[in-house]
This record gives sequence, structure tokens and C-alpha cells, in this order.
Amino acid sequence: MARLRLGTLFAAYFVLSTLGFLYTLSQLGQPCNCRPILLTANSHKDILRDQQEHRRPPSDDGEGLNLPTIYVVTPTYARPEQRAELTRLSQTLRLVPALHWLLVEDARTPGVVATEVLAKSGLIYTLLSMETPSELRHRPGEPIWVRARGVEQRNAAVTWLRRERAWDTTAVVYFADDDNTYSVELFKEMRYTSRVSVWPVGLVGGLLYEGPLVRHGQVTAFRTAWKPQRPFPLDMAAFAVALHLLIIHPEAQFDPAAERGLLESSLLSSLVSRADLEPRAENCTQILVWHTRTEKPKLKHEEEMARRGHGPDPNVKL
Amino acid sequence: MARLRLGTLFAAYFVLSTLGFLYTLSQLGQPCNCRPILLTANSHKDILRDQQEHRRPPSDDGEGLNLPTIYVVTPTYARPEQRAELTRLSQTLRLVPALHWLLVEDARTPGVVATEVLAKSGLIYTLLSMETPSELRHRPGEPIWVRARGVEQRNAAVTWLRRERAWDTTAVVYFADDDNTYSVELFKEMRYTSRVSVWPVGLVGGLLYEGPLVRHGQVTAFRTAWKPQRPFPLDMAAFAVALHLLIIHPEAQFDPAAERGLLESSLLSSLVSRADLEPRAENCTQILVWHTRTEKPKLKHEEEMARRGHGPDPNVKL
Repeated sequence: MARLRLGTLFAAYFVLSTLGFLYTLSQLGQPCNCRPILLTANSHKDILRDQQEHRRPPSDDGEGLNLPTIYVVTPTYARPEQRAELTRLSQTLRLVPALHWLLVEDARTPGVVATEVLAKSGLIYTLLSMETPSELRHRPGEPIWVRARGVEQRNAAVTWLRRERAWDTTAVVYFADDDNTYSVELFKEMRYTSRVSVWPVGLVGGLLYEGPLVRHGQVTAFRTAWKPQRPFPLDMAAFAVALHLLIIHPEAQFDPAAERGLLESSLLSSLVSRADLEPRAENCTQILVWHTRTEKPKLKHEEEMARRGHGPDPNVKL
Repeated sequence: MARLRLGTLFAAYFVLSTLGFLYTLSQLGQPCNCRPILLTANSHKDILRDQQEHRRPPSDDGEGLNLPTIYVVTPTYARPEQRAELTRLSQTLRLVPALHWLLVEDARTPGVVATEVLAKSGLIYTLLSMETPSELRHRPGEPIWVRARGVEQRNAAVTWLRRERAWDTTAVVYFADDDNTYSVELFKEMRYTSRVSVWPVGLVGGLLYEGPLVRHGQVTAFRTAWKPQRPFPLDMAAFAVALHLLIIHPEAQFDPAAERGLLESSLLSSLVSRADLEPRAENCTQILVWHTRTEKPKLKHEEEMARRGHGPDPNVKL
């Protein structure tokens, strides 16, 4: 009896533990689940032309799980250096989890360069196009600063966000031009923005940096050499906005008629007061974004080469 | 006797399988081993001052296993936009597996900016410093192109590679200035270089692109508007060299006295003939690197701000 019970017990234990052992063996050599899985989807809306949207799950590297999404809004336009600029920026954005790139081209329909760079980027993105109306466009002979670039495009992105992402109550919106330099750390600073978060910007306004001055955790003034009396003397790269603030203020937008230097103020004045600004980057003492500008490339030999029959190879993507 | 043997067997089996079960339990919830492990090591050599070296295992993302190492040689120097430029380039290089960044500062000892950017970069790197001798330095009033920048620094890196990496027989060397734009795909193209691999460069030489012209897999000519009779009419960003070629030609170097536009030829002429060039990037029809240049930032208000007691905050890292 004792022998029988012991034998049965042994048999049962043997079967169970062998099954467990076989399961463990079957798990050996499986790859870790650390790589992003790419899902893509296209959608087309009536108001904004030719948008393309691609999605992937929110986590690209384990860090991204449950992070608020950062919508990076980038106005762009066709020019010889566009592919270089967009390639470079897309590679920086690849290092940021839970990011959605909203690229808005100043054209009737998005160009080949933007489309191709995005397709290669591995990012979640939406491509919009919004042509600047002719009456707002820069005229030959006009100084470059009379009309701010990218205004209609940024407003188109805000319109898209209100229509398509009103449900995304923790999301953040950042206006990032395609030629600035962004440290990957900047995106960690803006990730949890309640209203409007702010930080310094390097190499702008004729200074080594411009930025908010912080006392007891509050923005009390601004380091700027130019029009310090502006409501918000901040560069476009100096702030991020909580999406819900744009939703509850449906009329807020960048004013295409804003005076020079007042474009940022034209949006922010509708959303917050100075006391609401949330200083980031160690009380605004770390520079994590720079207003670098790319020199206009010199192309003086291109025409002459074409005359001599050595124009660009049509197989080369410019 | 049978009872005793069965009991002993059961006891032994019970102990062994329980130990196995406990081990399996202890492994649950452990993170996947997909992240790079950083090992750091410093070494100081007598010839090159203040070098710092950091290593990590060759694989950073599974792709890197057994890939030939790419040594990226970047001359740099202190200036207001240095932190922006190095931050941006370091972020591009982070996306490339099996890469070792050799940063060479034109100074007696490496500066704070280079040291800090590297420490944050997550890259394998070596920081060298090599001051340009005063007789080779640019003189006030001299046109900028009379003396090429970065020559002594690139040669210092080649010297370091010959001393420290002669054993690395599959490695590749690429000379990448800190203000160009590099597509991550470029590094895949140069990874397996037998002698000297070549490709086009965008926005250089007064053209939309300069580059080798390929026929039947051989470089037969070059698209360039300027001095096409040069032995190798190639931009510094247009080629990568197999390290072993630099080892077996121990005298090969960039000639500090080379005429304008002949610096690249001064090195390459010692290493290969035109027929040895290995065309990459789909027979040199893809542009994966651009000679973008950053505008010199305008800092006209900085002095005036300092006079008014609003100089840069000493806590801000410029």
C-alpha cells in the first residue's frame, strides 16, 4: 500500500515536472521581444490634402509604454537641401519613443522628397500639405523677415490635431523646424507638459542663447536682446503645448498677420499667462535645442554643367 | 529493497527537479538582454595628448555581431556652435552598429564640450587632441581656402589607428566632418570596403552633387565642375578606406601643404589607383551624404547684454 502510493506519487510528479521541463526547453533560443513591430495604415481626409499616416505601437523600445505622445509639427518646403535636412531630423526623432511626426509641406500636394524620407524613417508620421495663399507669400525684393514662414502649415497641423486627436488627453505638441538641432534629451523634458513647458534655445536672437529666467520655480523674466516687452519673448523651439489646451481653446492659432517676433506670442496669448509657464531643463539652465541654420548651398556650376551635357543623372534622387 | 531504491530515486529526482524549478522561477521577470552593456576604459599614450577611450561590446542591437568596425574620424574645434554640431552628429552615429568615433580636437587638450558630448553619447569613442602648429594655422586676412582645416587632426587619428588598431584587419576608416549630414544607410554601404569605396556627395563643389561616374562596375570618370584633372576629384565625405591599406602604407597621410582641392588626392594617391575604387550606393546613383554647412551664428547682442549685466548664466553649458 505504502509502496503503491509512493509509486503513484512518483509517476504523477515525474509527468508534471517533465512537462514543465519540456516547456522550459521550448522557450530557449526564442528572440527577446525588444524590437518594434511596424504596422502601417493610410488614411485620407477631405480638408487637408494628401495626408498619409503611419502608425506603430506606442512602445518602440520598452521605454515608450504608456508615455504621453509627442506630436512634432514640422513645416517644410521643397529646396535643394530639403532631403538632407529631413533625413537628419528624422534620424534624431527615431531616437525618441512615443513620437508622432506631423510634417506639413508648403505645396498643393506633398512632394517626392518628403514622402520618400518619411517612408524610410521608421517613424510614426502624418504627412500633410498646405499651400501658403499667394497673398501671404514672400514677394521678390521684400526683406525675408516681413512674413514669417510656416504659419499656415503649423495652423494646418493644429487643425488636424483638433479633428483627429482630441481624444489624446495627455499628448504634447512641439513645433520643430527642419533645420534646428535637437538633443534627444529635450523630448524627455517636454513629455509631461500640463499647459506650456519652456526652456532656453541656443544661438538665437543675436545671443549665445535666449531663455526664460526662473525664480522659485516660476518664470519671472526672459533673457532676450530684442523686444523684451513682447508678451512671450520666446523662440518657436522654446516651448511645447499640452494638446488639451489647444482643444479647449478652439480658436487659438498662429496669426499670419502677426508682427515680426510676435508669432509665438499670438498663439501663446490665447492659451496661457506668463505665470502658467512650466520651466524645464533644470530651471531653464540646460540648452538642449539650438537654432542652427544651414547655409544656402552654392550651385553656381550646375547650369554650366547642364549646358555641357553633364546635368544631374535622372536616376539620382535629389 | 525495491522500496528503498524507489524511495531514494524519488528523493534524488525531487531534489534535482525542485532545484531546476527554483532556478526557472528566479529567471522570471528578468529583463531581456537586448541593451548594450557599457564598459569604459581610459588609456593615455605619450604621442597623442589626453586621449580617452570608451568601449562597449561590438553588438549594440544584435545587428552588430561580427560586423567590421567603422572608425569615424572627426576633426573638431571650439566655437559657439560646437555643442550643437557634435550633439547632432553623435545622435546620427548612435544609429550605426559597430562604430567607433575618433574625435580629434584642434587644441592642446580636449575641451569640455567634446568631453561632455561624448560622455552622454552612448557611443564607443576615442577622444584625441592635436593642436595645429602655428605655422600651418589660418592667418587673419588670408582667404579661408588657403589652408585646409583638420589636416593635422585627421593625420593624428591615422597615426593612432596604426598604433592601436593594426590588428583590426577588417576595419574601415571614414573621415566625417562635424557639420555634414549623413544618412544612416551610408554606413551600410561602406561597411565592407576592400580598398577604397566611393559614392556621391550632395550640395558640394557648386553643384547639386559631385560623384564618381560608373561604367560596368568601374569608376571611369567624375562629375565635378572644379579641377576635373585632379588625381581623385572627390570630397572628403566621398570615400572610406580599408584600415589594412593604411597599415601596409605606413607613410600615407594627408599632405598639409597640398594645394586647394588636392588634400583628398594626397592621401588616396599613396593608397590606390583610380581602377581600385569600389563604387557603392547603387553604382554611385544614391546620395546618402550632403555637404551641408551651418551658418556662422550671429551674436551681435551678446556683448551689449554683458555690459548691461545680463551676460550668460555661469550655470549654463554653452
